[in-house]
Amino acid sequence: LHELLPLMKGFIIALIILFSFDCTAQKNALVFQTDFGLKDGAVAAMKGVAYSVDPDLRMFDLTHEIPAYNIWEAAYRLDQAAAYWPAGSVFVSVVDPGVGSARRSIVMKSKSGHYFVTPDNGTLTLVAESLGIAEVRVIDERKNRLANSDSSYTFHGRDVYAYTGARLAAAVINFDDVGQISQDAVIRLPFQRAGVSDKTAHGTVDIIDVQYGNIWTNIDRETFRKLNLRAGDKVLVRIYDEKKLKYDGEMIFGKTFADVPEGQPVAYLNSLLKFSIAINMGSFAAVHNIESGPGWTITVSKK
Amino acid sequence: LHELLPLMKGFIIALIILFSFDCTAQKNALVFQTDFGLKDGAVAAMKGVAYSVDPDLRMFDLTHEIPAYNIWEAAYRLDQAAAYWPAGSVFVSVVDPGVGSARRSIVMKSKSGHYFVTPDNGTLTLVAESLGIAEVRVIDERKNRLANSDSSYTFHGRDVYAYTGARLAAAVINFDDVGQISQDAVIRLPFQRAGVSDKTAHGTVDIIDVQYGNIWTNIDRETFRKLNLRAGDKVLVRIYDEKKLKYDGEMIFGKTFADVPEGQPVAYLNSLLKFSIAINMGSFAAVHNIESGPGWTITVSKK
Amino acid sequence: LHELLPLMKGFIIALIILFSFDCTAQKNALVFQTDFGLKDGAVAAMKGVAYSVDPDLRMFDLTHEIPAYNIWEAAYRLDQAAAYWPAGSVFVSVVDPGVGSARRSIVMKSKSGHYFVTPDNGTLTLVAESLGIAEVRVIDERKNRLANSDSSYTFHGRDVYAYTGARLAAAVINFDDVGQISQDAVIRLPFQRAGVSDKTAHGTVDIIDVQYGNIWTNIDRETFRKLNLRAGDKVLVRIYDEKKLKYDGEMIFGKTFADVPEGQPVAYLNSLLKFSIAINMGSFAAVHNIESGPGWTITVSKK
Repeated sequence: LHELLPLMKGFIIALIILFSFDCTAQKNALVFQTDFGLKDGAVAAMKGVAYSVDPDLRMFDLTHEIPAYNIWEAAYRLDQAAAYWPAGSVFVSVVDPGVGSARRSIVMKSKSGHYFVTPDNGTLTLVAESLGIAEVRVIDERKNRLANSDSSYTFHGRDVYAYTGARLAAAVINFDDVGQISQDAVIRLPFQRAGVSDKTAHGTVDIIDVQYGNIWTNIDRETFRKLNLRAGDKVLVRIYDEKKLKYDGEMIFGKTFADVPEGQPVAYLNSLLKFSIAINMGSFAAVHNIESGPGWTITVSKK
Repeated sequence: LHELLPLMKGFIIALIILFSFDCTAQKNALVFQTDFGLKDGAVAAMKGVAYSVDPDLRMFDLTHEIPAYNIWEAAYRLDQAAAYWPAGSVFVSVVDPGVGSARRSIVMKSKSGHYFVTPDNGTLTLVAESLGIAEVRVIDERKNRLANSDSSYTFHGRDVYAYTGARLAAAVINFDDVGQISQDAVIRLPFQRAGVSDKTAHGTVDIIDVQYGNIWTNIDRETFRKLNLRAGDKVLVRIYDEKKLKYDGEMIFGKTFADVPEGQPVAYLNSLLKFSIAINMGSFAAVHNIESGPGWTITVSKK
Repeated sequence: LHELLPLMKGFIIALIILFSFDCTAQKNALVFQTDFGLKDGAVAAMKGVAYSVDPDLRMFDLTHEIPAYNIWEAAYRLDQAAAYWPAGSVFVSVVDPGVGSARRSIVMKSKSGHYFVTPDNGTLTLVAESLGIAEVRVIDERKNRLANSDSSYTFHGRDVYAYTGARLAAAVINFDDVGQISQDAVIRLPFQRAGVSDKTAHGTVDIIDVQYGNIWTNIDRETFRKLNLRAGDKVLVRIYDEKKLKYDGEMIFGKTFADVPEGQPVAYLNSLLKFSIAINMGSFAAVHNIESGPGWTITVSKK
C-alpha cells in the first residue's frame, strides 16, 4: 500500500494530462459548396481562412461547380449529400448573387443535427424539408467575421461563411454564439411537390444527373408506390417546360440500367430512391433536350 | 531501489495508456476514383459514408473525371498513380456501367500491398500486371454494405465500395472480412503488350496526356532499350487506329521537351519511363488527331 | 515527502514521453497548384509521394486548372490565396514548360513566413512583391529528390517539388537543408504596376474572375483613393490589348454588384481590395471580349 499510493496518483495525473492534450478529440467535418469553379484561388482562400482557425479541421468539398448564381442547384446538391454525413457536420454553401446586398447571412441547424452556413436566398429550400429545421440564427458579423475584412464587400464566402463555419466545426464557438435566433422564416424557392392524383404521379425534374444525362425527379418511393407498379411494368412519362410538353413516351420500369438493352430508355428509382429516367449507356437529357429546375415538371402513370 | 519500483511501474503504465490512446496510429490512405465528375454531389456522399465509418480517415482523390463508362482509362489512371502510394493504401474505383447487373464486386490485394475496391469489369487490367495479384476477394454484401441501402440498386460506389474501402482503410475490418477468396480470374481488357520484333518496337497508345496532348504508350524503358537508341537519334513512328495508319513521321529522341524548338515533335520517356511523343509547347494529339485506348497501336524504329 | 519524490519523477517522465510522442505537433499545410488538370493521375502521384513522406501531412489544392504553361496565371493565383494561409504553409506550384531544361528549382521563403516551391520561371513575380522575399534557396537535387527517380526528366512536380515541399512541411528537413542560398535574383515577368498620373489611374488587367467574367486589375485601394472617388460617382474606363483600345465606357463606382440593376456594368473594389469591373448577373469579359495578363492594361478616371 505504501508503494501503491504514489503510483495511483501518478496514474491519475497521467490521465489528466492525456485528456488535456486531447489528441483524439473529435472535430466536426467542414464541407464546402460554391459556384466559384476550380480554376480560381477563391476556394483556397476560404480553406486558408478555415485552416487558420484550426489546422486540425477536416475539410471536404461537396462541389464548386454549381452553375453561377444557380440557387436551385445549390439547394439540390446539399440535399443530395448532407444526409450521408454524421450529425455535427458543418456545410458552408456560397452561391451568393446578392453578396453585399441586404440578404441575410444565416446558420440553420437541422433536426438531424447538421449545420448549414449560407446566405438566406433559397439555398436551404430542400434540406429544410428533408432534414427539418431545428433552429436558425442570423450571423452577427460584428463577432463572426474575419479580422480586417471590413473593407471587402464581395466575398462573404471567405470573410463570413468560411470563417464562421470553421469556428463552429472546430468548436471555437457554439451555435448560440453565431447570433440571434432568426425571427423570420428561411427563404424557400417555390416548386411542385411530389404527389399522386387520378392514378398519375407528378413532381419536379429536380436535376440532370450531369455525367450521364439521367433525369432525376422529386417523386419519392412512397409516392411512386401508390401507382402499384412492379419491376418490368411499363410507364407513361410526360415532361413539361413550364406548361409546354417536351417529352411524351413509354418505357419499362426496372431496377437498374442493365434491365434494358443499350440505347433503350428505362425508368428506375435512383440512389436517393426517387423516380428517374435514363437511357442505358446513353444520355436521356441530351437526346430529348430535357433540362431541370422548378420550371420543369413530370407526370408518370402506369401504361 | 525502494523508490525506483513505483517509478518504473508508473513509467510502464503511462506507456500502456499512451499506446491504448493510440493517437499516432497509422490509418491507411483512402483514394477515390470515379467517372462521376465534380459537378455532382455523388463524390461527397461517398466521402460522407467513409467519414461516418471513421472521421480520422485520410481521403484523397485520384480523379473523378474518367470519361463516363471508360473502363480502360480507369485502369490506366490507377496504374499511373497507385505505385506512388505506400503499401496499405486503399483505392476505391467506381467506373461501373454494369451497376446492378450480375458483375461482381471485388477487392484485390496486390503483391505490393495495395488494395483495390472496384466492380470486376476490367478496371484492374493494368495494376494486376504492374503490381501483381496477391489475392482477390469477392465482397460479401450481406456484411459489407451501408445499413439501410438495400433499396438502392444504382449507387454501389456509395453503398458498397466507399463503405467497404473505408472500413478496410480504417482497419474496422481485415482483408479476410471482405468475403470469400475469388474462384474466378479478374476480368482483363485485351490490349497489345509492348514488344520488339524486326528492330521495331510495338505497343499500345495507352492514353493522351490530356492537358498537353502528349502521346503516352505502354512501351517501357526495357523494351525501348532493345532499339539501341541514344538521346539525339532520330526515330520513325507510326500510329494506327485499329489497322488504319493515322500518323507516319520521324522525330528526335530527347530527354525532355526542351530538347527541340517550340512547335517541333519530340520522342521521350515519360514520367512513368514509357515511350511518349510530344510537340514542345504544343499538342501532338490535337495536331494529328490521335486518340488512345486498346484500339490504338504504335510502332517505333531507329531511322 | 518520501512518497512525493517518485511521484514527481513519474510526472516529469510522463511529460517527456508525451512531448516526444508529440501527437498534437503542428504540421504545416502543403498546398498544391499545377496546370495538370484534374483528369489526370499526376496530382494523385504527387500526393502519394507527399503522403509517403508523412501520412499526417495536411494537403490542399489551390487549383490544378491553370491554363497549360500560363506562368502569369500561376503567379496570380498564388498571390490571390497565399496570404490567407498561416505562416509556415508550404506552396508547391508546378507550371513548368521548361521541365528538364536548365531552369532552376527553388524554394522562396517570404517575409510573411510562407514557403514557395517552384521552378524559377516567373511564378513568384507577384508574391515576391506582395509578401516580400526573405530568402531564396536553390533545391539541391542530390539530397532533395525522390529515390530512384533519376531516370525521369519530365515530372519534377512529383520527383522534386512535391517531395521537397512535403519534407519541408513535415519538418523532415529545415529550410537550410533545401540547398544553397541563391546568388541570382528570382525571375520576374514584366508588367505595368499600378499608379496615378494626370488624375488617371493605370495598371494591368491581372485576371478574369473566370466563373463570372469580372475584370480584376492590380490597381489597389491606396492607388485608387488618389482619384478621390466616392460610392455612386461615375468613372471613365479604358482597356487596352497592348496599345489597342478594346473598351471605352463609363459606369458607376459601387460597393457591390447589387448597387446597379441587373445587366448594368459596375466598378468596385474586389475581395483583394483591387479595382474591378463587373456586369451585375452578367459577364463583362464575354460581352466586351476582354482578356487578361501583362499585355492587357487599363486606365480609370473620374467622370
